[in-house]
Amino acid sequence: MSETSGQRPVGVIGAGSFGTAIANLLAYNADVLLYSRNIELVDTINSTREHLGIHLSASVQATNDLQQLARECNLLFPIVPSTNFRKMMHNLGPHLRPYHMLIHGTKGFDIRGISDSNPGGGKLKRENVSTMSEVIRQESVVVRVGCLSGPNLASEIMEGQPTATLIASPFDEVIHAGKMVLDSKHFHVFGSHEILGAELAGALKNVIALGSGILKGKGLGKNLQAMLITRGLTEMVHFGKAMGASGSAFFGTAGIGDLVATATSKRSRNFTFGFRLGQGESMEDISDSMPELAEGVRTLQITRQLADYYNLRVPITEMLHRVVFEGFDIDRALEYLMTYPYDVDVDFL
Amino acid sequence: MSETSGQRPVGVIGAGSFGTAIANLLAYNADVLLYSRNIELVDTINSTREHLGIHLSASVQATNDLQQLARECNLLFPIVPSTNFRKMMHNLGPHLRPYHMLIHGTKGFDIRGISDSNPGGGKLKRENVSTMSEVIRQESVVVRVGCLSGPNLASEIMEGQPTATLIASPFDEVIHAGKMVLDSKHFHVFGSHEILGAELAGALKNVIALGSGILKGKGLGKNLQAMLITRGLTEMVHFGKAMGASGSAFFGTAGIGDLVATATSKRSRNFTFGFRLGQGESMEDISDSMPELAEGVRTLQITRQLADYYNLRVPITEMLHRVVFEGFDIDRALEYLMTYPYDVDVDFL
Repeated sequence: MSETSGQRPVGVIGAGSFGTAIANLLAYNADVLLYSRNIELVDTINSTREHLGIHLSASVQATNDLQQLARECNLLFPIVPSTNFRKMMHNLGPHLRPYHMLIHGTKGFDIRGISDSNPGGGKLKRENVSTMSEVIRQESVVVRVGCLSGPNLASEIMEGQPTATLIASPFDEVIHAGKMVLDSKHFHVFGSHEILGAELAGALKNVIALGSGILKGKGLGKNLQAMLITRGLTEMVHFGKAMGASGSAFFGTAGIGDLVATATSKRSRNFTFGFRLGQGESMEDISDSMPELAEGVRTLQITRQLADYYNLRVPITEMLHRVVFEGFDIDRALEYLMTYPYDVDVDFL
Repeated sequence: MSETSGQRPVGVIGAGSFGTAIANLLAYNADVLLYSRNIELVDTINSTREHLGIHLSASVQATNDLQQLARECNLLFPIVPSTNFRKMMHNLGPHLRPYHMLIHGTKGFDIRGISDSNPGGGKLKRENVSTMSEVIRQESVVVRVGCLSGPNLASEIMEGQPTATLIASPFDEVIHAGKMVLDSKHFHVFGSHEILGAELAGALKNVIALGSGILKGKGLGKNLQAMLITRGLTEMVHFGKAMGASGSAFFGTAGIGDLVATATSKRSRNFTFGFRLGQGESMEDISDSMPELAEGVRTLQITRQLADYYNLRVPITEMLHRVVFEGFDIDRALEYLMTYPYDVDVDFL
């Protein structure tokens, strides 16, 4: 039982690795309701208190009932894959009231008005693409939204390794509420008002992590990885500015912080996907054997089209798209990028 | 024999790991004279063509004669430890003429007007501190100077791993001359006019790499390493702006690129120094068993005092100084940094 029992529980939606890690962190400060759409998983968590190889705090209770979640919790952390996010919000929305606050932890884009089963097949425009906070606003009456972003490899959080995160929201009360329940000795919470920048950084960095995995899979070293991160960050800023975010969001916890952790760790799903590609496996083989598709793969499909829409010069995005979806030779892509005529070293500041 | 034999050879001053790696890269495009003050090493290199475990190109000839170097080469790459740089330039200076161009690859500061044997002992002011390009200007008639900076772990370059670097110089002809001899399929050279920013970034990142090594030595993970890199970059920008550099130099190849490579690789000397500290060894034990003191240790002594001089808020620099030089407990330093009240996530853009 936590110190704040008697207060309302905090809700977490999605029992994937990051959602589960956040549930356990919240349990230091509050009672937690952890939602999964998988009823068997709910039963297993409640009976064994084990999930994904870790022990769940006694303050965490699993549920399959969105209505219960909305009734008991004022503060909710939706953390589900971007492909499922709108559907989840569509189901949750009718139960939400203006007093609810939602802080999501999903790092990807939603698309609509275009076939979702084939997001690479059409010509996306900005109005087809939503961030998760935009989806929340579209699918519910909730106004007070925020997002969670930072160097937060779930496997390390579950081991009790210390780190920091950022809650970005236009509303100070959302940042404050999030800090109250999430801040702890091992998990420090910063605040920012730049929610769009934080969301874009979180989504876009997965593409660079995928590329970093490819380099590692090809046996390439730290020097080139660092160049990819440097140039990748530049492309992230180009996307961000085109989509209306300020550049500064990309240079803090949610930007460089998240990017460096994800793109240099073998323990991120996007890196692993790229690594296996770099080792010579096909897109199909990897997809078949990964329980969840890496977010970066879907984000790459979407950003490649956004680059066309905004007429952006993003050679890494372009080459990664060719390698992942068009069977383009990795060595040729590397040669192209190594000799790409960057006019000046950094031109966005 | 290289393709350009008949042209003047290019000089490299210093046969440490980075100087030797650069000599071998230059040998793709030019004949190379490699200077070492160690006459036995010169003989060994010329007779065995082996040094630091790698094979030197037939186009590289070692020499112990600075006068010969200045006479035969118009373009020189000085790459010696920062503690020896001024003395080397003092000896080389009388042989240099205004037609010489110097592109250095040294990542540290020179101090003067204060006891060099104890740089932490006095109160440094900006006028006591010089970058290496400033030392070149002070000790010779040479005007056309540049510096080399980027994700360039010498061990990877020697293995033939591809990467990129930056030549920063106010003079286009210096950048052009450097590109002509150094650019190759596996080593791409970018140009920039921001020499002060590139020099500061190259020197300051060693301190953060040292800190990253400490974290790893303590068994801490990628999330925290990424936070250190993020916040460390912020402190680098604060130092850079105080010393007159623009922020943008810190976000390209010479900034984030070099920082990420050095601070995430076990193969950098600064990381290794920190790692051993983190594992519990004393400063004295490590210094005694490392052939060259890590540049970051000396830079930390200098920047700690510069922070006082400029009245900068640089908590990582402050804590690292306490840990390395004052025996401060690493866990307490970490706790201090984790709970440090950063007002906003990023405030320098």
